[in-house]
Amino acid sequence: MKVAGKHWRSIWPIGERAVGIVDQTRLPTQFVTVKLSTCDAVIDAIRTMRVRGAPLIGVAGAYGLALAMRADASDAHLARAYTALLASRPTAVNLRWALDRMRAALARASIAARFDAGWREAARMADEDVATNRALGAFGARLLASAQSKVRRPLNVLTHCNAGWIATVDYGTALAAIYQTFDAGVPLHVWVDETRPRNQGHLTAWELAAHGVPHTLIVDNAGGHLMQHGQVDLVLVGADRVTRSGDVCNKIGTYLKALAAFDNGVPFYAAAPASTIDWSIADGQRIEIEERDGAEVRGAVVDASTQVANPAFDVTPARLVTGIITERGIAAPGELPALFEKAA
Amino acid sequence: MKVAGKHWRSIWPIGERAVGIVDQTRLPTQFVTVKLSTCDAVIDAIRTMRVRGAPLIGVAGAYGLALAMRADASDAHLARAYTALLASRPTAVNLRWALDRMRAALARASIAARFDAGWREAARMADEDVATNRALGAFGARLLASAQSKVRRPLNVLTHCNAGWIATVDYGTALAAIYQTFDAGVPLHVWVDETRPRNQGHLTAWELAAHGVPHTLIVDNAGGHLMQHGQVDLVLVGADRVTRSGDVCNKIGTYLKALAAFDNGVPFYAAAPASTIDWSIADGQRIEIEERDGAEVRGAVVDASTQVANPAFDVTPARLVTGIITERGIAAPGELPALFEKAA
Repeated sequence: MKVAGKHWRSIWPIGERAVGIVDQTRLPTQFVTVKLSTCDAVIDAIRTMRVRGAPLIGVAGAYGLALAMRADASDAHLARAYTALLASRPTAVNLRWALDRMRAALARASIAARFDAGWREAARMADEDVATNRALGAFGARLLASAQSKVRRPLNVLTHCNAGWIATVDYGTALAAIYQTFDAGVPLHVWVDETRPRNQGHLTAWELAAHGVPHTLIVDNAGGHLMQHGQVDLVLVGADRVTRSGDVCNKIGTYLKALAAFDNGVPFYAAAPASTIDWSIADGQRIEIEERDGAEVRGAVVDASTQVANPAFDVTPARLVTGIITERGIAAPGELPALFEKAA
Repeated sequence: MKVAGKHWRSIWPIGERAVGIVDQTRLPTQFVTVKLSTCDAVIDAIRTMRVRGAPLIGVAGAYGLALAMRADASDAHLARAYTALLASRPTAVNLRWALDRMRAALARASIAARFDAGWREAARMADEDVATNRALGAFGARLLASAQSKVRRPLNVLTHCNAGWIATVDYGTALAAIYQTFDAGVPLHVWVDETRPRNQGHLTAWELAAHGVPHTLIVDNAGGHLMQHGQVDLVLVGADRVTRSGDVCNKIGTYLKALAAFDNGVPFYAAAPASTIDWSIADGQRIEIEERDGAEVRGAVVDASTQVANPAFDVTPARLVTGIITERGIAAPGELPALFEKAA
């Protein structure tokens, strides 16, 4: 991503002793970078959402495990660090995917070589994430260009949460498709859901503004009304976990938009790299949904006698999903296993 | 409503020269009353949502027209004041209903007697609103008690926006049913949608806390997930306009909750007095939806280059509505005309 003319990734190595991140809790008002030198610091950054977005959480977790090996490369410490990182946020499967891949790479290395092996593997995963997002974005952009050619006016795409540059190492998932579409000169406009309680829509608006993509911020309540009035041509979101049957787990409220899309004949797509697909689960309702601190919802206004609930994700059943956009191509939910040559 | 042990209505006459209101933009953190002495002051209070809620807007409009007559009781001024009040908020039909009734009463009076006639008529409408809400609430409470007897645990009701004491002259519409159910000793718990952008859910939480009704505040994104997991037994909202076919126009986001309710077999009810029913329209999609200032959504955070849209209401089609709770009883959408002996 470019910020004030300079290219940034969302996470980067600082020598071989730390990683740098952009503190996403300070965006969009302030662009502040933070240096993380220990596995515990990475865990804290994930938990507090200073780093967020399923693909970025995965790579951050990988660097966290490498940093743990720098402190103590023993099997016991590896197991402890793996478990602690995995527990930092439960819903996005990319974290487990990244930690499993790291653990396998670390297990192959001698204790003495573990940190080096881990550090290189984490860097590889960061580079691969960018390449994956470019591939996925190209498939998505072809889809959007085709949809725009049918409406013959700027295509109206609605997105929820932030699946952009800063939800990944670079480039984004859902927004990668939007950036490539825009860069190809295809006219489009993005409806940006505010995405309470954490307002990731403000991050999306900030990204789209930086890239020059026309966009309009709306409250999470508004999308259904816009679809009823023909003002949305396509819904495009990211994902935190996609089951092998094509259920899409994503930021809380996505399911409501998918229902409205279905009710109004608007196609609903999720952009998700292979690392977001959980082949071990068919039924998305079995995914553990993170319950976050009620303080995120309560704010300063609400009386202490009022209880607060704050589930962070929901699951859109495959029957409401038109397609999953991956780095291998676009599949209807039922065709995901065939696309990846996996047993259904 | 009782605030700190004292009984208040949401609007009250101050002598015969002004009305008092509770400034709802200051709630729930501050309880501040405001004196409105002119029709223009009433229009401003409606437009800025210091008074809000379809039934209360109606009565406030009635007092506004009476105050206009105090300044100048001519036919020309009556017509001007009627038009200006009607334009203050376009969507809730109660305002038009109240102004039409007032205009008819005023037209019957001589110029000299107009202010007195109008003032008395507005006071009658305020009293009738309270009686209507008690009747409507009793029908709703019977429904909730019956639903609770089937689940044999506290009934979980989800509500959107605020249809309580302060959305009416007193007692509420949707919340009237909840208060009567609670007062009858039927165990229930209310999920309170935050209701962005104006956070009327904070008003609902404030009311429920004052009445002692167990409740939990959630973001507008969460309700679908809760319904998927069996945590909502019934959705109960107010309405700003109900068409003769039973389409329900209510605060933006209601449609999304109705879709989720339908998808999960959860009954969806709207509580609406006769004054909220617009017999002149069948298709709710023809209702004029107020577009409010984008500043309500933007806040201080979002960059000026980002556009903002802020539609204030949406329309839930009758096919998603289980029933309308009125002061005459509860009707399936298609049975509304029969309940009120009107042509369908």
